[in-house]
Amino acid sequence: MRLSRFSDIGLRALLLLAVDPERILATAEMAMRLRVSRDHLGKSLQALQALGIVRSTRGRSGGFVMQSPASSVKVGSLVRQLEPSLALAECFESESACPLTGDCRLAGALSEAQDSFFRTLDQYTVQDLVAANYQQLVEIGGDRAVAHHGS
Amino acid sequence: MRLSRFSDIGLRALLLLAVDPERILATAEMAMRLRVSRDHLGKSLQALQALGIVRSTRGRSGGFVMQSPASSVKVGSLVRQLEPSLALAECFESESACPLTGDCRLAGALSEAQDSFFRTLDQYTVQDLVAANYQQLVEIGGDRAVAHHGS
Repeated sequence: MRLSRFSDIGLRALLLLAVDPERILATAEMAMRLRVSRDHLGKSLQALQALGIVRSTRGRSGGFVMQSPASSVKVGSLVRQLEPSLALAECFESESACPLTGDCRLAGALSEAQDSFFRTLDQYTVQDLVAANYQQLVEIGGDRAVAHHGS
Repeated sequence: MRLSRFSDIGLRALLLLAVDPERILATAEMAMRLRVSRDHLGKSLQALQALGIVRSTRGRSGGFVMQSPASSVKVGSLVRQLEPSLALAECFESESACPLTGDCRLAGALSEAQDSFFRTLDQYTVQDLVAANYQQLVEIGGDRAVAHHGS
């Protein structure tokens, strides 16, 4: 049972951006800090941009910056939108080869459980996660973040 | 977001067995009905056997049969035990390369959501799923199942 790497990276990139919402971070810098490939990160950031949560800036010091307030981004809704597929099992797919589809209650029970999963995550906003992560993110974030928040 | 194929197959095999709990089904027959590879099915059945839910029988008409009553098998606990990994994201793993581990609230929130997922599934037993599936399973199950339940 696992989230897609796409959402996983998207969530972590958003945490990095949300800790210092005015700061523009280059994709290369985020990729280095998160220890993920720049390509994968770029795709997740594009999705976050399409959702209106971050925006890109052009130019030599271009990159990504928060667009929506982190306190307005519910984690459950975010993950639900980022996940490339919510098909928990084969029977969720229209082209399922399983003969037990149709009125099968397994898919219904799994779907209900998935709703509980997202409802629980929706109790948290990205800001909630960042607040608790603050000290650690600042340590990783380097001088600019410390100076900004220390002032 | 997806369950492992291992659990997915295990769940479906168990549904097939539970609809007619006295009946021994050969692995080859179940693999054909579920349209999955015999190898993959065999591994999931071994796990179900290790959990004491099914047992294997030897001999020419050997195969697998229910060991525990389907009404005693909670679906959430079952999936929790079948899933090879409950690591929802990279930060769940001890060898995570993510620098945001430690006090990170993301893993905590995800873990709480995962608990909700399993709690919701625990409202169902395998029997609940089979009861609703009965008609469909019988149609797939062939004459023996129809005769048994029709008598």
